[in-house]
Amino acid sequence: MTTSRVLHFLRGPATSPAPADHQGPRQHLRFPPAGEGMRRVSVACSSSTTGEGEGMTYKGAGVDIDAGTELVRRIRKMAPGIGGFGGLYPFGDHFLVAGTDGVGTKLKLAFETGIHDTIGIDLVAMSVNDIVTSGAEPMFFLDYYSTSKLDVDLAEKVIKGIVDGCKQSDCVLLGGETAEMPDFYAEGEYDLSGFAVGKVKNDKVIDGKNIVKGDVLIGLPSSGVHSNGFSLARRVLEKSGLSLSDQLPRNDDITTTVGEALMAPTVIYVKQVLEIISKGGVKGLAHITGGGFTDNIPRVFPSGLGAKIFTGSWEVPPVFKWLQQVGNIDDAEMRRTFNMGIGMVLVVSRESADRIIEDTHGSNPAYRIGEVIEGEGVHYV
Amino acid sequence: MTTSRVLHFLRGPATSPAPADHQGPRQHLRFPPAGEGMRRVSVACSSSTTGEGEGMTYKGAGVDIDAGTELVRRIRKMAPGIGGFGGLYPFGDHFLVAGTDGVGTKLKLAFETGIHDTIGIDLVAMSVNDIVTSGAEPMFFLDYYSTSKLDVDLAEKVIKGIVDGCKQSDCVLLGGETAEMPDFYAEGEYDLSGFAVGKVKNDKVIDGKNIVKGDVLIGLPSSGVHSNGFSLARRVLEKSGLSLSDQLPRNDDITTTVGEALMAPTVIYVKQVLEIISKGGVKGLAHITGGGFTDNIPRVFPSGLGAKIFTGSWEVPPVFKWLQQVGNIDDAEMRRTFNMGIGMVLVVSRESADRIIEDTHGSNPAYRIGEVIEGEGVHYV
Repeated sequence: MTTSRVLHFLRGPATSPAPADHQGPRQHLRFPPAGEGMRRVSVACSSSTTGEGEGMTYKGAGVDIDAGTELVRRIRKMAPGIGGFGGLYPFGDHFLVAGTDGVGTKLKLAFETGIHDTIGIDLVAMSVNDIVTSGAEPMFFLDYYSTSKLDVDLAEKVIKGIVDGCKQSDCVLLGGETAEMPDFYAEGEYDLSGFAVGKVKNDKVIDGKNIVKGDVLIGLPSSGVHSNGFSLARRVLEKSGLSLSDQLPRNDDITTTVGEALMAPTVIYVKQVLEIISKGGVKGLAHITGGGFTDNIPRVFPSGLGAKIFTGSWEVPPVFKWLQQVGNIDDAEMRRTFNMGIGMVLVVSRESADRIIEDTHGSNPAYRIGEVIEGEGVHYV
Repeated sequence: MTTSRVLHFLRGPATSPAPADHQGPRQHLRFPPAGEGMRRVSVACSSSTTGEGEGMTYKGAGVDIDAGTELVRRIRKMAPGIGGFGGLYPFGDHFLVAGTDGVGTKLKLAFETGIHDTIGIDLVAMSVNDIVTSGAEPMFFLDYYSTSKLDVDLAEKVIKGIVDGCKQSDCVLLGGETAEMPDFYAEGEYDLSGFAVGKVKNDKVIDGKNIVKGDVLIGLPSSGVHSNGFSLARRVLEKSGLSLSDQLPRNDDITTTVGEALMAPTVIYVKQVLEIISKGGVKGLAHITGGGFTDNIPRVFPSGLGAKIFTGSWEVPPVFKWLQQVGNIDDAEMRRTFNMGIGMVLVVSRESADRIIEDTHGSNPAYRIGEVIEGEGVHYV
């Protein structure tokens, strides 16, 4: 049984949520305000098959959640005064917004497919899509590339992707570290982490606090699985008996292989989202990473509000249909593991919804996918 | 033969050097200004024993340098317009200064000694000591901790060190990522990277451009090997036949083991350096990492200037004497591999030198270790 978890610790002030962070499917643990602010914690647990005949699930194995929770409890204890401004750092009339992330086990698929020139886009995407949820404009990015023995051709491909990602998000690749660490990584393998810093004017921070019942949820399309859910996706692939070079089943576009479909780079929403924000009406943003709609959308809401999602309002891409069918994964499990075709959700005022959707025609067309309701959590109708 | 290299790519404007970066022993490649600025490149190569009877060297194996150079050449080609402000990002009347680094193969020694509660100090030190060389005050830090299976006790120790390092440098631990990556790391092992961002007023940037002949070099003591040269240090240890729990030879303090001496956390110079800077007279700063004085000091000088170092002006710590003796390493090799007891060098005006040195008495006492001369490079007298 493979176990994969990502634990993220970010601390946010009570009034300004930290940028959405990125995990596998997770359990949210919310602590009450203490000291300077609130600490938001997400613990992600991995896929585990429960038996031959049963459907696959991304279930939170107790031990994993306990370990993550325990680590964060200890961090809080030793650093009660540190990090009162999770992700947001006050700087004159601006906040600096910082995020760090890796691309998780999607890297294993890069090693297996040999597709290395887009994993850098994923790396940049995970951090910049996070910080743009606060309304922040990315300024610069730094990368850390670690491997046991530097392979120039390989590294060039990876860094090419990072450069592409920076271009797509209009930010500067300000520096980086390429570290050769003998005996740390298997031959041909590497790890990546990235770090993005953006800025947003104090009075322009988007934090969800003005969201009210009746506001509209707008979804921006994803390119596929993006950079989350790969523990489960790789397990499904194994069960399918297909190779990465086989054609993706349930796909009209017969030129796409399974490997290509899974490795499709994460969409960088920065330019589109900043343009939409600049025209007004946006109250909250959720980067749909691990945890899917189910975990990511509610985190931007004030307490007492939830979401109704119209499940037929957009087309679920073939890769998710294939994963669900082969893995015999139920709907709820799919929705809290994968983005299902929507990588960024905007919560906007009812008045601005039509205009915003119309404006996206011709670029990355947005869908009206739901609305804000009284209650808690996400309801799929 | 173990080979370890670190390649760093930073781009700096012609007038403002990027903060000193951290490598093993390295070869400098300076490109002429192109596009927005200059790209500074450092390629570090690792230790290799050349035979039983010969002294150990950290020699730049041709292949390694070629690989690093080649990678940077390709990066330049694909991103000519990206990263014109190496490490320094203009922001109103300030520059934001960012640095990223890991701790290299010192991690292997942490695994072997079981000393995990100070490696986080090393991690923070490597980045904040870099950015303070521009005169920047660190604001916040983020960490990335990657392991195959989360061990809460171990992670707690590592993060405790990161918290300590942030306290020592008066910066906020703004966020972090703890990533579980199954099948990436050996049992009990992990990798670390860190990111620090600081600020400095435009007119307060320290860039060495006012350095003149006759200026004084002041050295601040290190705690030992810090976080560079571990490929060579581990090789010497192997040759010595000592275990990590044996007493360090050539040491008056008989309670120090070899493991403790090598694992001594990197000194964080932030507070001391910022205080010295605030009182005036500081023209340039060099964080003595891999490459030692030989490579790190000249990089802060305007062209046509070099350094004369008075080798007897400070006490070389026992750990270096032991490394040199056991490894049969010649002086030049030692000086371009290790910090030899001085972790930060300040270039100050002749008028301010005595005052600066006097002010440090009672804290981390500074030494007058040399002076700026006409010429190139570092001359040891």
